[in-house]
Amino acid sequence: FIQESMLDINKADVAAILDELDMMEALFVLRALDPDFSADILNELDEDPQYKVIKAMPPEELATLIDHMDSDDAVDILNQLVVNDREAVISHLAVKEKSLYIIELLRYDEDSAGGLMAKEIIKANLNWTVVQTIDEIRRQAENVEKIFSIYVVDNKEQLLGRVALKKLILASSNTKVADLYEENIISVPTYMEGEEVAEIMRKYDLEAVPVVNVKNKLVGRITVDDILDLIRDQAEEDIQAMTGFSDDVEESDSVYRLSRARLPWLLIGMVGGLLGAGFIGFFEEGLNAVTALAFFIPLITATGGNVGIQSSTLIVQSLANRSVFEDSLTKRLLKVFLVAVLNGLVLALFVMGTVVFLYDKEVKFGLVVSIALFSVVLLASFMGTLTPIILDKLGINPAMASGPFITTANDLMGLAVYFMVATLLLNL
Amino acid sequence: FIQESMLDINKADVAAILDELDMMEALFVLRALDPDFSADILNELDEDPQYKVIKAMPPEELATLIDHMDSDDAVDILNQLVVNDREAVISHLAVKEKSLYIIELLRYDEDSAGGLMAKEIIKANLNWTVVQTIDEIRRQAENVEKIFSIYVVDNKEQLLGRVALKKLILASSNTKVADLYEENIISVPTYMEGEEVAEIMRKYDLEAVPVVNVKNKLVGRITVDDILDLIRDQAEEDIQAMTGFSDDVEESDSVYRLSRARLPWLLIGMVGGLLGAGFIGFFEEGLNAVTALAFFIPLITATGGNVGIQSSTLIVQSLANRSVFEDSLTKRLLKVFLVAVLNGLVLALFVMGTVVFLYDKEVKFGLVVSIALFSVVLLASFMGTLTPIILDKLGINPAMASGPFITTANDLMGLAVYFMVATLLLNL
Ligand SMILES: [Mg+2]
Ligand SMILES: [Mg+2]
Ligand SMILES: [Mg+2]
Ligand SMILES: [Mg+2]
Ligand SMILES: [Mg+2]
Ligand SMILES: [Mg+2]
Ligand SMILES: [Mg+2]
Ligand SMILES: [Mg+2]
Ligand SMILES: [Mg+2]
Ligand SMILES: [Mg+2]
Ligand SMILES: [Mg+2]
Ligand SMILES: [Mg+2]
Ligand SMILES: [Mg+2]
Repeated sequence: FIQESMLDINKADVAAILDELDMMEALFVLRALDPDFSADILNELDEDPQYKVIKAMPPEELATLIDHMDSDDAVDILNQLVVNDREAVISHLAVKEKSLYIIELLRYDEDSAGGLMAKEIIKANLNWTVVQTIDEIRRQAENVEKIFSIYVVDNKEQLLGRVALKKLILASSNTKVADLYEENIISVPTYMEGEEVAEIMRKYDLEAVPVVNVKNKLVGRITVDDILDLIRDQAEEDIQAMTGFSDDVEESDSVYRLSRARLPWLLIGMVGGLLGAGFIGFFEEGLNAVTALAFFIPLITATGGNVGIQSSTLIVQSLANRSVFEDSLTKRLLKVFLVAVLNGLVLALFVMGTVVFLYDKEVKFGLVVSIALFSVVLLASFMGTLTPIILDKLGINPAMASGPFITTANDLMGLAVYFMVATLLLNL
Repeated sequence: FIQESMLDINKADVAAILDELDMMEALFVLRALDPDFSADILNELDEDPQYKVIKAMPPEELATLIDHMDSDDAVDILNQLVVNDREAVISHLAVKEKSLYIIELLRYDEDSAGGLMAKEIIKANLNWTVVQTIDEIRRQAENVEKIFSIYVVDNKEQLLGRVALKKLILASSNTKVADLYEENIISVPTYMEGEEVAEIMRKYDLEAVPVVNVKNKLVGRITVDDILDLIRDQAEEDIQAMTGFSDDVEESDSVYRLSRARLPWLLIGMVGGLLGAGFIGFFEEGLNAVTALAFFIPLITATGGNVGIQSSTLIVQSLANRSVFEDSLTKRLLKVFLVAVLNGLVLALFVMGTVVFLYDKEVKFGLVVSIALFSVVLLASFMGTLTPIILDKLGINPAMASGPFITTANDLMGLAVYFMVATLLLNL
């Protein structure tokens, strides 16, 4: 019954339903279905339910499903198991070629081109004819679900170019591949980072990209469907890094997991706030003399925060889309400086006016708040700009720079500037 | 010379170079190249340089380039012109069919499936044979650059299914399309939002999706290369909305444009800060009595900000990946409540300990800070959760909810809670 009712439904839809069932129910459904279809569904499951199902399956059963998967998906599944379980599954694989593919792919870093590629591709030798190539397609038809191009190699398996399927259809049977293929195609090395592969595929409008090793030998291909998944996961991670989660979570995770992922950065913010309290305490006498100083603390810290996050966002985005002719750091910082001066002036004048005319304070006091505000805008702009650049140079995700750590640092810096300006100008 | 040296380079690379030249130089290069290649490059240019070049070109010249473009790209270009200029260009188009395509596409909203689709597709009638279909491919070969599937229609042009190119190659010449095609394929209506189309293509691993009108008539297709561009632009816009830009900017924009895009939200933050100052001023007497109250102002506002942005991020991401069985609002809020209580307790205890033992304040004072902090965590969690849900219901981008407006509101709310708790407990 399950088999019948689910056969007409798309694998992604079945997976979305199984995501919501518990592990035993999901396992029951997967066992009721044809292994080819079950393999597809297993691949499409969300991380957590997928892991539970994999852990619960005996190695023989998992091996049967993996025999029906593309090598890239097989490796994604196996990478979740500990080494012993992994080897148990591999030893049960029925298809010898597949197990060789998998053993090769397990060597690559998951986030690299090698970790994203599938070994299933259609290769044609330069000297083949169209008929020979179509025979090869027939032979591989079951293994390679989606053929976008046929990759052309020489006798040493080195990548020379590609023939679009369309061209193959329109060519006459005895044309040589050598006369059909397109040279100078874009390929990526196995060690390239996934994000860079995604940007290349976007820029050059590719639905698949061949992967080569250091000797330019064709070793696999990456398809755009996996890149779409990568981009989604990456965007979610970046935003979570920006907003202070210590771990990749989802709304549907448990209360405990959600709390735990939020706490570390909240605690760091807390330590920052307590340091700030200690710092302001240092100026207790000044505060007693001029209570109004306390009124503008939130204004100073909030503006520092807003300016800092604007600056770092802009830099993080520009780091993600590097242009051909990069501006020098000096030129970039000069621009940051000019924008900060312009915005700082407008804000400072606005505050000056309000403090003096609306809140009826002395001009001198207005000057303290405005000068502190102006300095904070300037400092936060530089911090917000430099931190992502430095993180990026250190190989850390620059999106982290918009996170709570920088916000906290900005708050402390803002307080320091504010009370220093006050001490100087008001002779506290 | 230009033609020779650029012929071997990819269109996207040439476009990246032209992005950095000034308008007259870019125009000079485009004129020196073959119109087919120039058309490709014009499509790949960044927004700003593209607009400048289009504005500077006489209508006849632009029409020549548009004659070499896919209809979706042609419409993207024409949408940037005012109606008169647009019609001037259309009247100069050499290819009658293209101008009909363009006039149809101009009717759709740019961000809808209709605005994303191209009219160039390969259609096969259900009753055709493989040979007839290949003839059609030959006829359209020049117009449809990338063929992924052939869409199968009945005599009324209604979409029935698709035939993968691979299947066509492997079938014998007189097989009927009716015996080859795959039914129940995924299609999208012209009015569907671009973001939803992107999510469908990601979920179902599609490199192209057919677009149908309300009568299920096949009217075009959307390809994944355009979806990759859409996703990138969308992600950038979301992050800019989250971090308080009033306009879509890039680091390379002018100082004036950058300042202008940042100012509105900074000013709103400023107004919030000034309101906060007025609010604290209201408690001036209390502050004079207990100066230490001022010390913990940044702690309270910063924590509110951090908790609020964490909460809204989680909800925005879960709104973007709706699952099949949505939790009810009550269940969601209960979870938010539990997480907030857990985190709030940890933070409150931590602060209590520090205030009393490290900073040597009275227990009563420690209670004021901890209770205020706990309440702020609770309130900020609810605000951060509810605002995106409400914005989403109102059809506003929920990512806005993490922006400066909510941060400012959170700051004010935090101050109110803090001083209210202090007034009550310390009898100020
Ligand atoms: Mg399969
Ligand atoms: Mg992988
Ligand atoms: Mg593109
Ligand atoms: Mg794959
Ligand atoms: Mg996949
Ligand atoms: Mg996730
Ligand atoms: Mg063209
Ligand atoms: Mg468009
Ligand atoms: Mg997918
Ligand atoms: Mg297109
Ligand atoms: Mg395009
Ligand atoms: Mg932009
Ligand atoms: Mg803040």
